[in-house]
Amino acid sequence: MFDLAKELWKYPRSITGDGVRLTLRRLKVLLPELQIHEIDSGTKVGDWTIPKEWNLTRARLWDPTGQIVCDTNSNNLHVVGYSSPFTGEVDLEELQPHLHSLPEMPTAIPYVTSYYEPRWGFCLAHEVRDKLPRGTYRVDIETRLSQGLLTYADLVVPGTMADEVLISTYVCHPAMANNELSGPVVASELASYVQALPERRFTYRFVFAPETIGAIAYIHLNRGHLQQRVRAGFNITCVGDDRAYSLLPTRNTNHRIDQVSRNVLRHLAGEFREYSWEERGSDERQYSAPLVDIPMVSLMRSKYWEFPEYHTSLDQLGTVVTPEGLQGGFEATRRCIDILEHDSIPTTLTIGEPMLSRRGLYASLGAGRFSTSPQQLLDVWSFCDGVTSALEIAERLGMSFFGVDELLQILRAHKIVHLEPKLFENSSH
Amino acid sequence: MFDLAKELWKYPRSITGDGVRLTLRRLKVLLPELQIHEIDSGTKVGDWTIPKEWNLTRARLWDPTGQIVCDTNSNNLHVVGYSSPFTGEVDLEELQPHLHSLPEMPTAIPYVTSYYEPRWGFCLAHEVRDKLPRGTYRVDIETRLSQGLLTYADLVVPGTMADEVLISTYVCHPAMANNELSGPVVASELASYVQALPERRFTYRFVFAPETIGAIAYIHLNRGHLQQRVRAGFNITCVGDDRAYSLLPTRNTNHRIDQVSRNVLRHLAGEFREYSWEERGSDERQYSAPLVDIPMVSLMRSKYWEFPEYHTSLDQLGTVVTPEGLQGGFEATRRCIDILEHDSIPTTLTIGEPMLSRRGLYASLGAGRFSTSPQQLLDVWSFCDGVTSALEIAERLGMSFFGVDELLQILRAHKIVHLEPKLFENSSH
Amino acid sequence: MFDLAKELWKYPRSITGDGVRLTLRRLKVLLPELQIHEIDSGTKVGDWTIPKEWNLTRARLWDPTGQIVCDTNSNNLHVVGYSSPFTGEVDLEELQPHLHSLPEMPTAIPYVTSYYEPRWGFCLAHEVRDKLPRGTYRVDIETRLSQGLLTYADLVVPGTMADEVLISTYVCHPAMANNELSGPVVASELASYVQALPERRFTYRFVFAPETIGAIAYIHLNRGHLQQRVRAGFNITCVGDDRAYSLLPTRNTNHRIDQVSRNVLRHLAGEFREYSWEERGSDERQYSAPLVDIPMVSLMRSKYWEFPEYHTSLDQLGTVVTPEGLQGGFEATRRCIDILEHDSIPTTLTIGEPMLSRRGLYASLGAGRFSTSPQQLLDVWSFCDGVTSALEIAERLGMSFFGVDELLQILRAHKIVHLEPKLFENSSH
Repeated sequence: MFDLAKELWKYPRSITGDGVRLTLRRLKVLLPELQIHEIDSGTKVGDWTIPKEWNLTRARLWDPTGQIVCDTNSNNLHVVGYSSPFTGEVDLEELQPHLHSLPEMPTAIPYVTSYYEPRWGFCLAHEVRDKLPRGTYRVDIETRLSQGLLTYADLVVPGTMADEVLISTYVCHPAMANNELSGPVVASELASYVQALPERRFTYRFVFAPETIGAIAYIHLNRGHLQQRVRAGFNITCVGDDRAYSLLPTRNTNHRIDQVSRNVLRHLAGEFREYSWEERGSDERQYSAPLVDIPMVSLMRSKYWEFPEYHTSLDQLGTVVTPEGLQGGFEATRRCIDILEHDSIPTTLTIGEPMLSRRGLYASLGAGRFSTSPQQLLDVWSFCDGVTSALEIAERLGMSFFGVDELLQILRAHKIVHLEPKLFENSSH
Repeated sequence: MFDLAKELWKYPRSITGDGVRLTLRRLKVLLPELQIHEIDSGTKVGDWTIPKEWNLTRARLWDPTGQIVCDTNSNNLHVVGYSSPFTGEVDLEELQPHLHSLPEMPTAIPYVTSYYEPRWGFCLAHEVRDKLPRGTYRVDIETRLSQGLLTYADLVVPGTMADEVLISTYVCHPAMANNELSGPVVASELASYVQALPERRFTYRFVFAPETIGAIAYIHLNRGHLQQRVRAGFNITCVGDDRAYSLLPTRNTNHRIDQVSRNVLRHLAGEFREYSWEERGSDERQYSAPLVDIPMVSLMRSKYWEFPEYHTSLDQLGTVVTPEGLQGGFEATRRCIDILEHDSIPTTLTIGEPMLSRRGLYASLGAGRFSTSPQQLLDVWSFCDGVTSALEIAERLGMSFFGVDELLQILRAHKIVHLEPKLFENSSH
Repeated sequence: MFDLAKELWKYPRSITGDGVRLTLRRLKVLLPELQIHEIDSGTKVGDWTIPKEWNLTRARLWDPTGQIVCDTNSNNLHVVGYSSPFTGEVDLEELQPHLHSLPEMPTAIPYVTSYYEPRWGFCLAHEVRDKLPRGTYRVDIETRLSQGLLTYADLVVPGTMADEVLISTYVCHPAMANNELSGPVVASELASYVQALPERRFTYRFVFAPETIGAIAYIHLNRGHLQQRVRAGFNITCVGDDRAYSLLPTRNTNHRIDQVSRNVLRHLAGEFREYSWEERGSDERQYSAPLVDIPMVSLMRSKYWEFPEYHTSLDQLGTVVTPEGLQGGFEATRRCIDILEHDSIPTTLTIGEPMLSRRGLYASLGAGRFSTSPQQLLDVWSFCDGVTSALEIAERLGMSFFGVDELLQILRAHKIVHLEPKLFENSSH
């Protein structure tokens, strides 16, 4: 995943244009079934309109001495996203309103966009801006904003059931690592993981699209299908650093997918921070919108807005995002998928407790003062009532789902319980 | 309100008699639609019987030197409420069982009544009683207890719907300010407020009656109508001092009217004290009685029983009850009425988030690090699912109802949401 | 109860054999209607098989000097329960694997059994074992393990309704006091108590059986009846010491029987320790097993596993179990029975508050500053809505059920309320 992220780093991603196209084509090499779609500028989608397509050739700024101040060849963040083209000379005073920097983070180039209002501009480190000499600056911003296309992709991995799990990420952020090369990279790995499963209970739908407008377009084009089939969703974002685990729950706050997520994070991470719905800021805003209503969670490492390098050039591969960070980000959602695939409703086959000793599951000499694993086996068994799910048993006993599932597999192997798959409510075959 | 209270101070209120009549007639000057009713002594109402009518001409006590000790012309509290008439001479030892004072509050005249057992008596400051010389006292209590009437009043302010909100207060307390001139005065102001509303969703029924027996009589005479129509009630009592806000919730403790009250008090007062049902002591005892079951709350300033001057002559206009205190008492219930009138169920008109920027509701330059009011607008919008009410959104977001309503009006004005009135369950047109 | 325990002390109880038979015959003297049943070794019951019957004649161990080390005539615990017979000479090294002691409790003989794997052995104090000299030991274990019977007993005390309350205890523990002579002794006392009631709402089923295998057999033989009729159960164990009160709740944790138990223990004991379902270790494991599903609680004094003398010879009558301890253990479940028998659903007969004063239930001089018992009477009355039970009123008001019931009896005597019996859900006549 880390190598893929390094490879994708250079593409000048935005909400439209060749940066998105190149990124999706590279992912299609890994995931040949990925379908790349395009939608015309000007198309009405929900309350929005697909904007013109923006492409960057190069943007540069020279100081009065002819020295380069900003050059997108060195960092894509140097140009305001969706900047208008501009070539000419301006003196420093005229230039200033077109410059963006962060006084409180003097070494960071900020990430600034202006999708829906035309303007040109550069972003740069505040310590550089502070030392700019008076005089005449040369500006050369070569961008094109024109009737074109918005590009996105999806990949459907079919399961036994028509019920779908949506896994969404976004491909519109240029050179930043945690927010957001980590999302597409981890989502790709999850797609490979799901494809490699020997069997799948559910159908998985992966969406790689620009944030907000891409999700809105996707919902607009697929609303009937999504509302009929999708039972839950994962938004994959900020999954690459190794400093924290975070959960953004559903609007409901206690949907089954929230319970799954909390069980995973509690036992994967020990500690994790749970945010409130009001702190949402990604595509759950669209997928969980009222009347769309897909229950969606984000299992993140350090959440957007909450880490110091957020939306600046300091959000780097290596310093912020690490191979371990990406692996943990992958694990969190991977385990949720495993729970959805393996959660069951167990029913006892014995009336009264099973006799563990004749199956070699209990020390035959009953001193009775200490009992650990047999007691736990019977704790799990005591809830095998044909109603309670393995996940619910895990939550009741303060155990990881996987610990409960392991014990249930022992009980099943010894013909003590029968397991039925636990599906979503309103599941359909 | 403060001036009205001063004017009503002098009438010798009790549960029957001219004190009540004069008080209600004065209120009818302000509220000409107020209907004054009378019911005969001896009428059976529920488990009770309307008592004889009691009227006080004057009650006086002279010490052995001929000096006045008690005179109802100086303070109505000097006579035991419903005292029998008595004229004669008694020595101090005989007099003592007829005197009532509070050793722990030596300057206060206590408020004592004996509605259902005939006795005569005086109330006086303990410091005065302590210095009474031995000798012969002259008593002249001129009262009449005779077959007569119990007087009460009501006022119905019709709304669009037949659903009623009951607002009840009591008019049986003589010269005391917070408990209870504040109630009738604030209830009158609420009646004027409701009458002046350009339109009303609900019908408002105001009842001014003596406490307990009056409420019981009112329920007895109107039970079918009350049970069919009244959805919620406010008991207006102890609403005049400026030292606290208090809530007595419904017996259910989590009826919609409790949620309305808590939202109001939390945002009006910051802090308020919530009492338990077991600490009730006013006419919710009748209106919320089992099988009557009107959900009723009291939004009070300092609750009866809980302030030091309670039921004594120290409960004065000016020292205890202030114009600001009355205004706050009015505001609390007024805001509850406003919530009932304006609560709505919003439904989004857009699929996916609305585009705020093209409506001028969002800064077009999205640096994304800080977002305050647009985020709050979208927080509210994210719950506009056609099920959740504005009040429920406010509670979920920790906001005042009025803050949410303001944002919903913006969203409605921009055609982003549609609002349906939120009614009570089982509402009827 | 203490005398009965002393009398039963000597019988060499195990899960089968004459020790159980003698114990049950002695109880039948007290409870002539007790039915003693037997079931053949080898019978399949649930997942289990009735084991061979085990009887102990005597077991002795002599040291190389001919001195007695262990003799079951002095303490039944000296032999491993279900020990195979063995006569012969072994040297100390060979003997050691057959000895059981507790290094951390050097004066205690541990209680060890080996029901389902044949082995022979002795249990002894660690301080004795430590000083055993090298040399040849003589072993004489006279036991018989043969095709025979498992013995248990039940007693049904019929009530007005077919609904049953199960009271279960176990009779398989040899010479130990709290765990478990206290259970059979207290259960017998409860049976006498229930038989002596002038009328019974419910039918009471008492079961005296060996733990685990006895309960499993009982369920196997009576499953249809138990599942159709039994509404709740009490497991009587560890009810003899005077150091604590403990509750093991149902698996559900909030069944009505849990509420009954908590109300009793809170007001009987002030403090009690509530354990979790995962800390269960007695016959609720069978009766509350999934698909059997009888809601069962244990109201204990010091819980099994939790007191230092547990499962050793230190668990003695007199030091651990006391007459006061047994009395408290009896009281706890006795009061639960009383609640089940007397819980009611009250409905007010008055519309609006009842007039207490004309019934002598209220001081007629209403100074209004202090009201205690009349207020409590009205608090209880205020919930008499024909839906809420006396127990629910008690829980809501933080009162003991018996306090509420006393007030309800006053209200009923004064024709203020009507009481309907509160039954279990799905009750059948």
